[in-house]
Amino acid sequence: MSFTPLNPGFEARVRDSFARQAAMSLIGARLGVVAPGRCEIELPVRPELTQQHGYVHGGVVGMIADSAGGYAAFTLMPAEASVLTIEYKINMLAPAEGETLLAVGEVLRPGRSISVAQVEVFGVRGTERRRVAAVQQTLMVMAGLQEERV
Amino acid sequence: MSFTPLNPGFEARVRDSFARQAAMSLIGARLGVVAPGRCEIELPVRPELTQQHGYVHGGVVGMIADSAGGYAAFTLMPAEASVLTIEYKINMLAPAEGETLLAVGEVLRPGRSISVAQVEVFGVRGTERRRVAAVQQTLMVMAGLQEERV
Amino acid sequence: MSFTPLNPGFEARVRDSFARQAAMSLIGARLGVVAPGRCEIELPVRPELTQQHGYVHGGVVGMIADSAGGYAAFTLMPAEASVLTIEYKINMLAPAEGETLLAVGEVLRPGRSISVAQVEVFGVRGTERRRVAAVQQTLMVMAGLQEERV
Amino acid sequence: MSFTPLNPGFEARVRDSFARQAAMSLIGARLGVVAPGRCEIELPVRPELTQQHGYVHGGVVGMIADSAGGYAAFTLMPAEASVLTIEYKINMLAPAEGETLLAVGEVLRPGRSISVAQVEVFGVRGTERRRVAAVQQTLMVMAGLQEERV
Repeated sequence: MSFTPLNPGFEARVRDSFARQAAMSLIGARLGVVAPGRCEIELPVRPELTQQHGYVHGGVVGMIADSAGGYAAFTLMPAEASVLTIEYKINMLAPAEGETLLAVGEVLRPGRSISVAQVEVFGVRGTERRRVAAVQQTLMVMAGLQEERV
Repeated sequence: MSFTPLNPGFEARVRDSFARQAAMSLIGARLGVVAPGRCEIELPVRPELTQQHGYVHGGVVGMIADSAGGYAAFTLMPAEASVLTIEYKINMLAPAEGETLLAVGEVLRPGRSISVAQVEVFGVRGTERRRVAAVQQTLMVMAGLQEERV
Repeated sequence: MSFTPLNPGFEARVRDSFARQAAMSLIGARLGVVAPGRCEIELPVRPELTQQHGYVHGGVVGMIADSAGGYAAFTLMPAEASVLTIEYKINMLAPAEGETLLAVGEVLRPGRSISVAQVEVFGVRGTERRRVAAVQQTLMVMAGLQEERV
Repeated sequence: MSFTPLNPGFEARVRDSFARQAAMSLIGARLGVVAPGRCEIELPVRPELTQQHGYVHGGVVGMIADSAGGYAAFTLMPAEASVLTIEYKINMLAPAEGETLLAVGEVLRPGRSISVAQVEVFGVRGTERRRVAAVQQTLMVMAGLQEERV
């Protein structure tokens, strides 16, 4: 699908908001491609992010997926709006491992009040990609909610 | 519901496994009550865990919920088994704020191969508790999967 | 939790709306208890509702759960509002069998624009109840949407 | 993705199983394309299937989605296995209306014990298709479960 953003400054808005997500910085996540209806987040894998089997913790996978889907939806919202996650559902498809994880969020349905996004998370090693999780997510368009500085 | 654990050493097993979750240590989460079919995880709130509005990141809420539900299920599994999250769904009910977050996981259906858990996450301030998220989660019993040292 | 309905005529409103759900009549579902934040739907089990193993079809279980949760939320909405399902997630916990199925929907979080409900579905045989499904559902409050006659 | 079925007789197996789903016959659903990792189900829209706003009931949409995803997974299972829905999550994206609804189920991850499918449901009017729902579903491979005649 191709989308036309309501806010021409959508990319700066996403990058600015991402920079204020302290939790993304804590885990070392980086913002990648930001395009209308699409957002990618990369996460270099390191021991601090693992669960008891040595793979990246499912909740960490959920973190980058939540942000990738949320920002994908945010790219299509009006300049004065803000985005809030209502809910998401994540299926773990394979052990979350690799040199980096890559979360690719795409809008399935943009809406005036409710948006729906899907996110795929891949484990990346060199040129190889393996899908490790799939997410379906519902987001809310918050009219006029000023983003607070942390 | 009241459950009878198959493994009398379930609590030590959960505490040992939790201690190997580097990601729990990264965010500062602590294991609380561990009982048959139940597990609680506490997370002191701090700025490093926030998203762009200053609340705890939804993915961080998902992390402690995922672990609380998974370990609740783990308490009822045989000694030689291991637990893996198949999927979870999380609804954000209120902004995740407070002095600490408390995730309370409870088994809804224990199973030989599939278990289902529900988790509630509360924002706690003094003696006040406010529910901030609700999770429904599906877990797999992995027979004989040796937990790896991180 | 105890809730105070905004619309004193909530029960008549739910019963009137349910009566217009042709799909509930097709499967033979009946409205039971309607209380603030709560709604029950009963479904006598019959061969027409089954899947290939002879149990009630998971989608039929989803139908009564969707309606029970939606009407539970509807009881707390203003008189001029209407309810729409945004999404739901259902876990099948046991084969859906019995003399009747009973779906019990309860509001977890009432909201001005978004409500969240949980639903349990039981297989009932005489005085015995067995939980067969658990649902977590997100609903939208639609201000001023006039319900259409079918 | 392209899949190689383990059971060369997968199509006959799916058609035979579908024919035993009395609930599919009750709502008037028909099996369409059955291919490795893919299954389509068509549902002519009629007044008996509606909810209070005159659209097809969300639970009915869930029914055909559940079956389409389940049979998509079933096409890749061994000859002696059977399929069971563990859980699914459905987002309603637009009012479910049209001349027919079309559910397209595709396997995201085939597995020895757990499969994951995604389903899209479209409202179809003439040559026009509009997406009305998106589903993410987890299925269980049941080794040796003989399907019962209804």
